[in-house]
Amino acid sequence: MHRLALKKPDGRKLILYSRRPMAPNLVAPSPRKEPVVANPHMRWHPLRGEWVTYATHRQDRTFLPPPEYNPLLPSNDVKNPTELPVGAYDIACFDNLFPSFSLTAAHPPELSVPTLPASGACEVVVFSQEAKGSLGALPLDHLKLLLDVWAERYTELGHNPLINYVLPFENRGVEVGVTLHHPHGQIYAYPVIPPIPLRQMELEQAYFKANHRGLLADMVADEVKSKVRLLYDGPHVAAFIPICARYAYETWIAPKVAAPSLAALTNEQRADFARAMKTVLLKFDGLWHKPFPYLMSIHQAPTDGEPHPEAHVYMQFYPPLRTETKLKYLAGTELGAGLFAADSLPEDKAKDLQAVEVSLDV
Amino acid sequence: MHRLALKKPDGRKLILYSRRPMAPNLVAPSPRKEPVVANPHMRWHPLRGEWVTYATHRQDRTFLPPPEYNPLLPSNDVKNPTELPVGAYDIACFDNLFPSFSLTAAHPPELSVPTLPASGACEVVVFSQEAKGSLGALPLDHLKLLLDVWAERYTELGHNPLINYVLPFENRGVEVGVTLHHPHGQIYAYPVIPPIPLRQMELEQAYFKANHRGLLADMVADEVKSKVRLLYDGPHVAAFIPICARYAYETWIAPKVAAPSLAALTNEQRADFARAMKTVLLKFDGLWHKPFPYLMSIHQAPTDGEPHPEAHVYMQFYPPLRTETKLKYLAGTELGAGLFAADSLPEDKAKDLQAVEVSLDV
Repeated sequence: MHRLALKKPDGRKLILYSRRPMAPNLVAPSPRKEPVVANPHMRWHPLRGEWVTYATHRQDRTFLPPPEYNPLLPSNDVKNPTELPVGAYDIACFDNLFPSFSLTAAHPPELSVPTLPASGACEVVVFSQEAKGSLGALPLDHLKLLLDVWAERYTELGHNPLINYVLPFENRGVEVGVTLHHPHGQIYAYPVIPPIPLRQMELEQAYFKANHRGLLADMVADEVKSKVRLLYDGPHVAAFIPICARYAYETWIAPKVAAPSLAALTNEQRADFARAMKTVLLKFDGLWHKPFPYLMSIHQAPTDGEPHPEAHVYMQFYPPLRTETKLKYLAGTELGAGLFAADSLPEDKAKDLQAVEVSLDV
Repeated sequence: MHRLALKKPDGRKLILYSRRPMAPNLVAPSPRKEPVVANPHMRWHPLRGEWVTYATHRQDRTFLPPPEYNPLLPSNDVKNPTELPVGAYDIACFDNLFPSFSLTAAHPPELSVPTLPASGACEVVVFSQEAKGSLGALPLDHLKLLLDVWAERYTELGHNPLINYVLPFENRGVEVGVTLHHPHGQIYAYPVIPPIPLRQMELEQAYFKANHRGLLADMVADEVKSKVRLLYDGPHVAAFIPICARYAYETWIAPKVAAPSLAALTNEQRADFARAMKTVLLKFDGLWHKPFPYLMSIHQAPTDGEPHPEAHVYMQFYPPLRTETKLKYLAGTELGAGLFAADSLPEDKAKDLQAVEVSLDV
């Protein structure tokens, strides 16, 4: 992996990554000149027992882009600069212009509920220079590089004592609110372990203590053995619709042997992870011969300085479509009570995806 | 409250409610003749520590309605029967044709995760005979009757030993996936306490044990005292944007003195609750002079037979709009990590709603 760290005129960082050596004289552009003033804070929600983040500076968007402006496209246009320079690189990562978490956050308001500075980081990861591309269309070694980048970001961000959890994710499709379709994801680095990973960690710790094995490792072994919901079965990595899927086409990708993060995987394991990813993504897009919307997130061990023998990295896809034309809306039971109701079985939806033939050799 | 319990030709129950006496000879129609075969089951999600419900019979929709068919409109059309008869009544409640929970559920599959029959009930509550109406447009005594109906359903459903939690809710607007706009809500009656109420119950119990007071009662008192986020301040009931709102215009309505359910409120308290509801709903619809979409749910004590001195009934509104034209999509951080990021302060959004003048005397 080749890596080039730059600084934007407004002070934000930009890191370029490539499979090949890069020219060292690239200059980082920015759509704005002034530094971003971000002072988000968090408030405690007493009835849910979780933090909520307030980042009002996000409304302070003085920059009015021209129509068709794509801030993620490499450009040397000095009149309408984008976030990325022209040059030979594969993947770029930079600080979000309007972050929900910032390492400079300080002095939260004093209220009748506990508050905290929303310390942390929000990064944008541009998957490719190709605006019309998609994750599944990238070559395997490009996907492998992306896994290396996510691993490096996890390690670097997690090393900061203020950051206790690192979440890479991708929102794809207008159905999940995406307006900028250039293939990209984000990384949120939190000062606390967020509610869902925290709950999972507690359940995995209890299971590990009782069984001296990982909870997810046992689930993966069950899926590989039963094959009923299996979508990819590689030497190191498996992909499947989990037995307890909440979304019709919910899919997990995980190494067969527990590892706390992408950074803890070997090169060979990450190469197999890339094959699993490409298989799943091509099946998704092949199912109805159209781009398949989803939320994707990568769950790894908290970076709180504690040992996490229970942790097991995995990638989750939450596709909002139940059928080619019907969206799963989260409504009363899901958002009010937290209890998901599915109208299909994971076994049946797995059959749909198993039937989509894909070729990785492109 | 006048009440008439009927049975549909397919075996489902229909209950009619009215502010005035009803004719006793009404006959319950049904869009289908055969009984509904519903055998939903639940699977345990080991990594989230929660149940997921699978109700595949929901796909078994042999009935193809004509265009413009509204199953909630009273009708004597024998060729295309609706769910409701023609007659003089205000509110109707009937068993959902495609329930996610059923009291006849049995014999769940044996899998590598724990399973349970999805015992329970799913009811539809039709708020009014007026297809083009809205909750906020109903007269105060009609809203009061609806609160009485919700109270009665809570008591009756909760009395069943199989049912441990009762959730009335309303999904309103195409933005939250609603296709049938006749004002109506639903009631889900669960065999388990769902994840969100369970978490809240544990937090409220810990607070009650430590402070000998209710957690929500203290939050309501803080809101009434500070007035900053207050939308309605009645003799018994308050409405406000909570200090820890996750949605821009999230609004709670709660009695000032803790009561475990709507059924535990006096007539006078429920009348004040109706005034709070109408105030909030008129402010919502008046904000941008258009119907305001939301998810509404009512949280009450579990019906698990245990005492719940910590419980405090409240109504929650989750509006998906952040601005007149912008939706809040739940994306990576909300659905992947469970940590909500807001780009506005509850105090500012409360000002917007406080400025909307409403008149209840209609």
